Amino acid sequence: MSRAFVKETFEALASQLADVGRHCYERGWALGTSGNFSAVVRKEPLTLAITTSGVDKGLLESRHIVAIDAHGRMLQGSGTPSAEAMLHLAIVRSRGAGAVLHTHSVWGTILSEATADGADSLTIEGYEMLKGLAGVDTHEHRERVPIVENTQNWTAAAPRIETILREHPEAHGFLIRGHGLYTWGKDLAEAKRQIEILEFLFEVMGRKRGLAWQL
Amino acid sequence: MSRAFVKETFEALASQLADVGRHCYERGWALGTSGNFSAVVRKEPLTLAITTSGVDKGLLESRHIVAIDAHGRMLQGSGTPSAEAMLHLAIVRSRGAGAVLHTHSVWGTILSEATADGADSLTIEGYEMLKGLAGVDTHEHRERVPIVENTQNWTAAAPRIETILREHPEAHGFLIRGHGLYTWGKDLAEAKRQIEILEFLFEVMGRKRGLAWQL
Amino acid sequence: MSRAFVKETFEALASQLADVGRHCYERGWALGTSGNFSAVVRKEPLTLAITTSGVDKGLLESRHIVAIDAHGRMLQGSGTPSAEAMLHLAIVRSRGAGAVLHTHSVWGTILSEATADGADSLTIEGYEMLKGLAGVDTHEHRERVPIVENTQNWTAAAPRIETILREHPEAHGFLIRGHGLYTWGKDLAEAKRQIEILEFLFEVMGRKRGLAWQL
Amino acid sequence: MSRAFVKETFEALASQLADVGRHCYERGWALGTSGNFSAVVRKEPLTLAITTSGVDKGLLESRHIVAIDAHGRMLQGSGTPSAEAMLHLAIVRSRGAGAVLHTHSVWGTILSEATADGADSLTIEGYEMLKGLAGVDTHEHRERVPIVENTQNWTAAAPRIETILREHPEAHGFLIRGHGLYTWGKDLAEAKRQIEILEFLFEVMGRKRGLAWQL
Repeated sequence: MSRAFVKETFEALASQLADVGRHCYERGWALGTSGNFSAVVRKEPLTLAITTSGVDKGLLESRHIVAIDAHGRMLQGSGTPSAEAMLHLAIVRSRGAGAVLHTHSVWGTILSEATADGADSLTIEGYEMLKGLAGVDTHEHRERVPIVENTQNWTAAAPRIETILREHPEAHGFLIRGHGLYTWGKDLAEAKRQIEILEFLFEVMGRKRGLAWQL
Repeated sequence: MSRAFVKETFEALASQLADVGRHCYERGWALGTSGNFSAVVRKEPLTLAITTSGVDKGLLESRHIVAIDAHGRMLQGSGTPSAEAMLHLAIVRSRGAGAVLHTHSVWGTILSEATADGADSLTIEGYEMLKGLAGVDTHEHRERVPIVENTQNWTAAAPRIETILREHPEAHGFLIRGHGLYTWGKDLAEAKRQIEILEFLFEVMGRKRGLAWQL
Repeated sequence: MSRAFVKETFEALASQLADVGRHCYERGWALGTSGNFSAVVRKEPLTLAITTSGVDKGLLESRHIVAIDAHGRMLQGSGTPSAEAMLHLAIVRSRGAGAVLHTHSVWGTILSEATADGADSLTIEGYEMLKGLAGVDTHEHRERVPIVENTQNWTAAAPRIETILREHPEAHGFLIRGHGLYTWGKDLAEAKRQIEILEFLFEVMGRKRGLAWQL
Repeated sequence: MSRAFVKETFEALASQLADVGRHCYERGWALGTSGNFSAVVRKEPLTLAITTSGVDKGLLESRHIVAIDAHGRMLQGSGTPSAEAMLHLAIVRSRGAGAVLHTHSVWGTILSEATADGADSLTIEGYEMLKGLAGVDTHEHRERVPIVENTQNWTAAAPRIETILREHPEAHGFLIRGHGLYTWGKDLAEAKRQIEILEFLFEVMGRKRGLAWQL
């Protein structure tokens, strides 16, 4: 890969990440500077385009995206990479993902706590929408979304996340308790599709719990 | 019909289908590449303009619409016609519809399961909004929305759908369990109006079930 | 009033009505061609600008607005005036209103039925938002919203509505059971403000009924 | 500060306040001319840019923003400063805030009443989103949002608000019962972020109360 090509790829991905970020903001999934979004610029050596900290996602632009290496060190751009950059890198490493998206939605937050009696996953099954997850070709699919405890030290917690990803090889995403959703894909389009699928299914499951016939 | 006229009609319908698709996406009824939309280009021999598979409906454009014949074979455009094309064709055949729309909404999904105790339809009655359904001119109307089981083989299931449509000659749409809504109209404007009417009424009925006075 | 001035006033109001209509559509209060909107062009002799029937409010433009006289006869424009034009005229007559707006929202529909045990009004009290209703200058206000039965013959029902308006001289709007809200104002801005206030308060009241502490 | 610089600062802030106001309107947090927004133009002598009364926030423009002094007297612009200007000034004084935002949301209104059994605050704890509040760097934070009684005389009530702000030195906002939310920040971006964080958390807490597992 020539330097010019890497630069061009970075710029294209930065612009697409900004679009996805503003879209998530519009849907209410990335309010108050929450959420962070990344895409792989090149695999060898690993270069990741990722949103910087503290940016209003409704105003997200290419210039808010930086490039980091496999250790989270800045390669390009200005600003501070997201505090959860180590989590993005762990997912890229474990899953061979081309893009990683992280949202904070109302229903994701609520469902991440709904199993606070100890369960460490949420099961979604029988919905046609599950087919929007990569490799799923029937509604007769059971998606188990791991729920991991929240922390403020993702550098220390990255190995724990890698263990969970290994233990759930078929998971398309995971929830952090009281925090939000991570999903990924081979590229940004796949990851964006999965965010929409999972957020939709969280809303379906959350609303169903409020209905009289569930009592 | 001259070839030039057919081409022109196809292009106009493709553009209108793209508008309707983006609109459904905005409302949250076609997230994650879900939903598919079609309109009849000509009746004899049947030519149907229909969305291709796997397209982000928020980015839907004319070029994502293809033309197929009565057997689902591609006549024009590139991409794969929706896997549910046979269902669209069955509806056009049974109802003489000029347009068929299919959405995946939160409330449609929830209500399609609300009768999982065996009932195979949802009854909506007494609402002014029912007058938005073709041929209904009073709120004193009882709409029975059939609920059919989901499948991944719509080619095989098409005859079953045609039977249900025959058994419910007055139905303006049907739900597929855990999946979503199909409705149709003499043209795209009528089908779009019915999508909005039915999705609105699903939301009313779904929300009512969550309220205290319903207990 | 010169003819040129009347024409100019009509055109300005038609454009403003189209803006208000598209806005209500965006909020989900006028889906599926539902809702209708009017404004007084001149009082003597009465000329009312009003939306025509069957128009998609998301696509509402000035050309979908017609002018009618006090008897509902067309003075200008093409299309069919709303079937509820007689109701608009009755409100203009009874209240001296400069604009009348009618929406079909999910919460308005639900609340209009919440008192189906016989009550014929909905009481809203103690909210700061009530100050958005004309003449209300404190949250310590009790708004009683009459609920009237639905009908398909508003020409025949107009006197009944005028009676209800006389019996509730302080009401800022009324609900039609299973149908929607009517409100009005001295001008379009006031009527639009009241639609937003009442729809907001309906949502507050509707959502509160679904919450656990209400049981 | 030169007069030219003050004028320039006022104009820049007026434009930013208009953006924030229209944004809050879009989210449904400032319907029906509700909500008001301010930012400090200079500290010595205090000059505050603030929205005028009765403006449709969906149409908010710079020209709807005026400048007032520490006593609420008009310095620049036309229109009536918000009736709650004294409350904005009290917050600026007590907290050294650079911007103050006030919204009327559905969930804020509902939660402000949810403790009507006497409690005078709402506690939010354990959510990642809390980190969007200034100075909070962990989800293991307990935010106590004071709830104050509503009034129509904020000039008289300003000392009461200052007392509450002194008693809750760590509070990032407060609710007025049946009315809405006040929050503030060192600048407009921080205040806007906090509005989004608090409104998001109100929605999470409100929706959770409607769910079956909470019963």
